[in-house]
Amino acid sequence: MAETPIQFGILGCADIARKVSRAITLAPNATLYAVGSRSLEKATKFAAANGFPPSAKIYGSYEAVLDDPDVDAVYVPLPTSLHLKWAVLAAEKKKHVLLEKPVALNVAELDQILEACESNGVQFMDGTMWMHHPRTAKMKELLSDPQRFGQLKSVQSCFTFLATSDFHENNIRVKPDLDALGALGDVGWYCIRAILFAADYELPKSVKALPGTVFNKAGVLTSCGASLLWEDGKVATFNCSFQANLTMNITAIGTKGTLQVQDFVIPFKEDSAAFSAGIESWFNDLVTEWKTMPSEHVVTTDLPQEALMVREFSRLVADIKRNGSKLDQKWPTLSRKTQLVLDAVKVSIERGIEPVEL
Amino acid sequence: MAETPIQFGILGCADIARKVSRAITLAPNATLYAVGSRSLEKATKFAAANGFPPSAKIYGSYEAVLDDPDVDAVYVPLPTSLHLKWAVLAAEKKKHVLLEKPVALNVAELDQILEACESNGVQFMDGTMWMHHPRTAKMKELLSDPQRFGQLKSVQSCFTFLATSDFHENNIRVKPDLDALGALGDVGWYCIRAILFAADYELPKSVKALPGTVFNKAGVLTSCGASLLWEDGKVATFNCSFQANLTMNITAIGTKGTLQVQDFVIPFKEDSAAFSAGIESWFNDLVTEWKTMPSEHVVTTDLPQEALMVREFSRLVADIKRNGSKLDQKWPTLSRKTQLVLDAVKVSIERGIEPVEL
Repeated sequence: MAETPIQFGILGCADIARKVSRAITLAPNATLYAVGSRSLEKATKFAAANGFPPSAKIYGSYEAVLDDPDVDAVYVPLPTSLHLKWAVLAAEKKKHVLLEKPVALNVAELDQILEACESNGVQFMDGTMWMHHPRTAKMKELLSDPQRFGQLKSVQSCFTFLATSDFHENNIRVKPDLDALGALGDVGWYCIRAILFAADYELPKSVKALPGTVFNKAGVLTSCGASLLWEDGKVATFNCSFQANLTMNITAIGTKGTLQVQDFVIPFKEDSAAFSAGIESWFNDLVTEWKTMPSEHVVTTDLPQEALMVREFSRLVADIKRNGSKLDQKWPTLSRKTQLVLDAVKVSIERGIEPVEL
Repeated sequence: MAETPIQFGILGCADIARKVSRAITLAPNATLYAVGSRSLEKATKFAAANGFPPSAKIYGSYEAVLDDPDVDAVYVPLPTSLHLKWAVLAAEKKKHVLLEKPVALNVAELDQILEACESNGVQFMDGTMWMHHPRTAKMKELLSDPQRFGQLKSVQSCFTFLATSDFHENNIRVKPDLDALGALGDVGWYCIRAILFAADYELPKSVKALPGTVFNKAGVLTSCGASLLWEDGKVATFNCSFQANLTMNITAIGTKGTLQVQDFVIPFKEDSAAFSAGIESWFNDLVTEWKTMPSEHVVTTDLPQEALMVREFSRLVADIKRNGSKLDQKWPTLSRKTQLVLDAVKVSIERGIEPVEL
């Protein structure tokens, strides 16, 4: 007999919650159980439009979701400034927490959230979906292979998209009281994670913003970038923006190999994704063309990456709930490292692009 | 009747001269006429191995090539520190000058070379071959298209290759008395050109080196990078190195479009080359995949890019020689802008990665 799936409650009806609701439906070990919004009408509409079963609980507040004893876990897609309050409260109500990124306004806030999860025995995971795509595991195999990749020397990443004028006026991601981290939190988060991923999650020794930071009138970052430097001399740069065509790259260059991917956050296609691997690349004798060219690696997936994220989170939650397993430390640690670097970029910008030691 | 081809003399027997000798043979309006080396034996061997016709002149000095009245143009692949002397002398001997990159140790030297060419009525062009690939013209069409690309917002470029230990010990490109610009001159040159190309050759207002510069024991740059900032807010970064697997990218992101190319300096294949163009890229409704994906554009070429370079240079020379045409200003201008930015990167590194205004 299949085990009862993990029952999810969703706090709020953010756009991204539509995608994650579907993911919860798709994940074999998770189910949509409740949704709460400050507007009951909105929650009702959301549930109807997003495949909630007829038995689902529809609440007119976030508290009500947290107070429902049958909710195992919550997905929190609220604006970043609300994460501290609601993630901590969820943990205190013994709900496991799947928290949208950026996870917090700064690492001090995140530490309060993580401490609440730890002390209440609930699992924490952030909503960085691409971490769960099987392509990511295949890329990690390449990056970890001393024969094919060697020692990492540099990483470049970018994530940009062209926000509409409506977005620039009204979206929560450009509002200082809601998502004060702007483009750095929304898209830079992914670049930082990609760089850490390539560096096997070793923190850089210093971080320095790049010239050319753009703020909106309210003082929220809409374009920025940074360079990172590690103790062993490897380097990374990233560039993130709400003001340029949708682009999301990782280029990681090792002594022996080069990994390139052009759709790392959201794959071009849901069911398969590719990366390019150049191994000991070199030219023909006259240097008029390449003798060894990069090869394309395609990785298929039965479930979209967001469903794999929900499945992995639910697996951990089920293990804790049913087997008394310990909390998994990997995911909170990755969130915290990402936030640490993000904070350093922000401080560097605030200090007039001075280097910030980590 | 076909016009007499432009008669080339080659100064020195550098490795790269093998490729350019073949290019001169392939170009319909150019011919291998002479080669000079400090060693007559070396020059003889070089001519025999590189398709020089039996009538070709083999000289035991560079001067002798310049003194041959039937040499129309010289190709100068000597170490950078010798460019000033030999390019100026060539110009004074009324030889048109195709000069390998980096063209000079600094812009002051380049200005002497350009002045010598100008005052002696000879054409100058640097050896940046990829500028002449028809793919480059197609990429420029995209970059210039307000409908497909919009306004340029950022460029990232890299060019790295893994030098052998023999290279690090013995190659002229790591010797302070020969190619003092090291990786910045050898591979960074291309990144800078790529960035300027994407920016329609508008100079940045400031240039700042990135952290993580590496020097060899002799003080020559083996890895470095820089960020560039323009008056209108657009930004660029590049990374160049002798210490990581062969990789050569341009990612140029505009408000509407994204251009990506992974073999910009030397195409994967001699006879065709591709780039990727993402136009108004966006996701499907649930943001689980892309609705509008980048498309691959393949551009074929009858002649390899280096032969197209020789053909274009020879066309200009023939026009000057036969029709009394004015010297072309485009190519010297591009060389000078590239050198200006390169100089600024070097100064920024020397000043402890301070920003340098242009």
